[in-house]
Amino acid sequence: MTDNAPSAMNAALSNPKQDMADLDRLERRRFALRYALDEIATLGPSIDPPKATEERAEASAILDEEATRLLCAPEVGPLLDRLESNAGIIGETRATQVKILKRDRSSLVGVPADERAAFCRLAVEANDVWRRAKAANDWASFEPYLDRLVAARVSMAHAMNPDADPYDVWLDQYEHGTSRAFYDPFFEQVKKCVVPLLAKCMAAPRKPSHRVVDGTFDERRQWDLARDLVRLEGVDTDALWLGQTEHPYTGGPSTGFVAIASHVYQDNVLSNVFSMLHEGGHAMYEQSVDPAYRFTSLKGGTSSGMHESQSRFFENYVGRSEAFSEPLARLLAKHFPGQLGRMTPYQLYMAENCAEPGLIRCDADELTYPLHILVRYEIEQLLFSGEAKAADVPGLWADRYRAYLGVEVSTDTEGALQDTHWSDGDFAYFPTYALGSAFGAQFKAAMVRQGVDFDGCCAAGDLAPIREWLRSNIWHWGRAKDSSQLIRMACGEDFEPRYYTDYLVEKFSAIYNLAR
Amino acid sequence: MTDNAPSAMNAALSNPKQDMADLDRLERRRFALRYALDEIATLGPSIDPPKATEERAEASAILDEEATRLLCAPEVGPLLDRLESNAGIIGETRATQVKILKRDRSSLVGVPADERAAFCRLAVEANDVWRRAKAANDWASFEPYLDRLVAARVSMAHAMNPDADPYDVWLDQYEHGTSRAFYDPFFEQVKKCVVPLLAKCMAAPRKPSHRVVDGTFDERRQWDLARDLVRLEGVDTDALWLGQTEHPYTGGPSTGFVAIASHVYQDNVLSNVFSMLHEGGHAMYEQSVDPAYRFTSLKGGTSSGMHESQSRFFENYVGRSEAFSEPLARLLAKHFPGQLGRMTPYQLYMAENCAEPGLIRCDADELTYPLHILVRYEIEQLLFSGEAKAADVPGLWADRYRAYLGVEVSTDTEGALQDTHWSDGDFAYFPTYALGSAFGAQFKAAMVRQGVDFDGCCAAGDLAPIREWLRSNIWHWGRAKDSSQLIRMACGEDFEPRYYTDYLVEKFSAIYNLAR
Repeated sequence: MTDNAPSAMNAALSNPKQDMADLDRLERRRFALRYALDEIATLGPSIDPPKATEERAEASAILDEEATRLLCAPEVGPLLDRLESNAGIIGETRATQVKILKRDRSSLVGVPADERAAFCRLAVEANDVWRRAKAANDWASFEPYLDRLVAARVSMAHAMNPDADPYDVWLDQYEHGTSRAFYDPFFEQVKKCVVPLLAKCMAAPRKPSHRVVDGTFDERRQWDLARDLVRLEGVDTDALWLGQTEHPYTGGPSTGFVAIASHVYQDNVLSNVFSMLHEGGHAMYEQSVDPAYRFTSLKGGTSSGMHESQSRFFENYVGRSEAFSEPLARLLAKHFPGQLGRMTPYQLYMAENCAEPGLIRCDADELTYPLHILVRYEIEQLLFSGEAKAADVPGLWADRYRAYLGVEVSTDTEGALQDTHWSDGDFAYFPTYALGSAFGAQFKAAMVRQGVDFDGCCAAGDLAPIREWLRSNIWHWGRAKDSSQLIRMACGEDFEPRYYTDYLVEKFSAIYNLAR
Repeated sequence: MTDNAPSAMNAALSNPKQDMADLDRLERRRFALRYALDEIATLGPSIDPPKATEERAEASAILDEEATRLLCAPEVGPLLDRLESNAGIIGETRATQVKILKRDRSSLVGVPADERAAFCRLAVEANDVWRRAKAANDWASFEPYLDRLVAARVSMAHAMNPDADPYDVWLDQYEHGTSRAFYDPFFEQVKKCVVPLLAKCMAAPRKPSHRVVDGTFDERRQWDLARDLVRLEGVDTDALWLGQTEHPYTGGPSTGFVAIASHVYQDNVLSNVFSMLHEGGHAMYEQSVDPAYRFTSLKGGTSSGMHESQSRFFENYVGRSEAFSEPLARLLAKHFPGQLGRMTPYQLYMAENCAEPGLIRCDADELTYPLHILVRYEIEQLLFSGEAKAADVPGLWADRYRAYLGVEVSTDTEGALQDTHWSDGDFAYFPTYALGSAFGAQFKAAMVRQGVDFDGCCAAGDLAPIREWLRSNIWHWGRAKDSSQLIRMACGEDFEPRYYTDYLVEKFSAIYNLAR
């Protein structure tokens, strides 16, 4: 409820019934446009033929413009104000829709339509260039696009919130309420824990080995394994499309149509396992939002951080646990009886948890993963502050990988070109991956405190009680609650990164037999 | 150019530069909405999971409403009138766009938005019901939907053109300028030719045999064959997505992204061959429209009849010709060396052209095919005139199949439930298939007259000269010319069904050794 005079006056003059009908109509029209945008964006990388790009880019830019125009129409501001003043009459769901729509509107209304459209076109083109640049290890071709994308995002941030630091504006977009003031101490704590812990692991006399899963694994059987895995995890396969792409992702236009696109590598069967568990976590979140929210702005996940917390929950807290290695070893033995039929769950658990500094974020183990994010977080800040240009990125990348992970970057394909995010114009997104990991540790602790037999569920390969906790505490709420609210409601306390660092220390100290 | 007073006044007051900008903007917005609608509609049956239906239907209905609202906006009528009066200034392409937009608008503007939206929702639901009804041979479950779909289409026809017969209105929608007065004599001529010709073939002492292609053919290899076939045919595979579905179709949102969804049957390799050649013809038409038309109402094919003429051209005039059996036999031998390696081109030609009265339109040979269409044309008229209800259809179907084809309909799955069209609300579409076949015969005669070595191209498996004739005379023009104009320009005469009946008589008399 707002108490300022114009809104109160609006309320006095308003017809709440008409306003509610207008709200519902606005929501349905926006739903349809976003459905189209999501379908085009989700399926594009997986199925569109090469020549589709130009017309797809044009269509997406125009549809995005239409969706923005609807929300930014001059009459919508007063409509939302009136509805807000009538929160008591319109019911809780509509009141929440109004809150979210006002927030979405405020981040759009300042950016001129042609600037947004130009950005959309640039991003589609840049993604295309990136795809080729990555394949050809050709940083130079992508370089001008990266500078243009950063400039576009800085300019948009200024328009969205002229008083704030541009990078902070984008951090807040992907995770409401965050800024560098929030992330800096978090990453500091993570760095202080992980860098020395990794060093100890590397120096440990007894290291886990992944030799047991080394080998060449038939791709077709790996796809069969992938399908079995998402079923075991609990994804609703009647609302799932499974496709192939270079960089795994989850998307989709509706709760009834979620798409996972993934990749299998002959020489790395665990990459497939953890990609699928990861994307399956995203998929279940999208599928499980309250059906009452389907045609409203409340559908979908509440933030990137919360989304990543769910994907990384199934990838790591479930997937790389000692308990889950039992059903997982059985599944691997079923699909590859000759190669993996004699592997013990404990051997698998060790193979999953070799802390090995590497070049590729997507292939990183649970311990080194946040360091990959830290590199990107630091470089993004330099790009946004103007302290670095795209031309500097390969150098900055190499320096940081050497400093934090102790590895030498040999090619840009395995360096700054490895991820798709920047080519889509997504900056300030990477930090949410690390944050999501930290959320997950706190959720795991809370569900165990509240009586979920976490290890028992994992060992039995029956994740229903875990899913039910996540469904009722998080998934179900869609965008109706922010991450901070969800954490407080679900865990009875505010976000606390200690759960994450404690978990890492405990887990990897045990695996590497470290003195504590 | 219009010469009525208001338009002339409009023209006097107008600012053609602003009007052209408004036209371009309208076209681009409509392009984006239709891109979305086409992508959703094309990919849906092939990739959407079962639970996608409800939200997809809602999104499609709303997007269709948006596209219609844009064109039917009150200011668009005067805008198009002014542009029409300024045809000399705005250039030929824009003048053609205006002509097509006026026609599209006139067929939409009378139908209330909520009626159109309700129809879209009904059609999506009905298609879903039909899919299950066909699988379960359950006519009763589809019956009420068919009555509702007919009623909806009759009502829309009244709104579109209150003075015309509703079925004529829909014939004109799919093929501009046609009505029962056009089709009745055409079908009469076809019936008079084909029914006795078929009887003679059936009575012939020496009949061609398909035994040489009987057998069980591995599905995976059939998909490899399908990919090779579209390449041989000349489809641009950089602008193609190939998917799987129950009922083969071609669609897609743009010239750069055309989708063919098809089906392979283990026990019928020729079904795969002719489905792919057919859909490939549609695909090449869509891919080859003048790139200048991409973001306008002139993209896509000009009519259903012309589209079907292209698909059936490659399926029949090329695909089932004696000359093309040479490269086709080689391709089949490549993929199935054990089973088809020793088949001669002539044996294949005979196998492709067994005139066998059957139940399934999609599997019909070239000779019996138009009789399947005739059945549907007659039943549609009865439904639209109110002389029959959905409950009568299975009986009408059985009677006509017995009368024209001499076969007994055993199940509705193989009877009136076999095709998807009615479940999508597409009535008056079927006749365009027969018309397209007739167009094709005339095109073949014209290109041969104009020097294309048709048989030589087919025998060499190099269809480029044939494609080039079709591209420059038909494909290239998109919607800028109507079928009747294209035929006149390409063939130097009006539509003439005699080419079709002559072709059938000549071809099947030879194959069946009939006295002439």
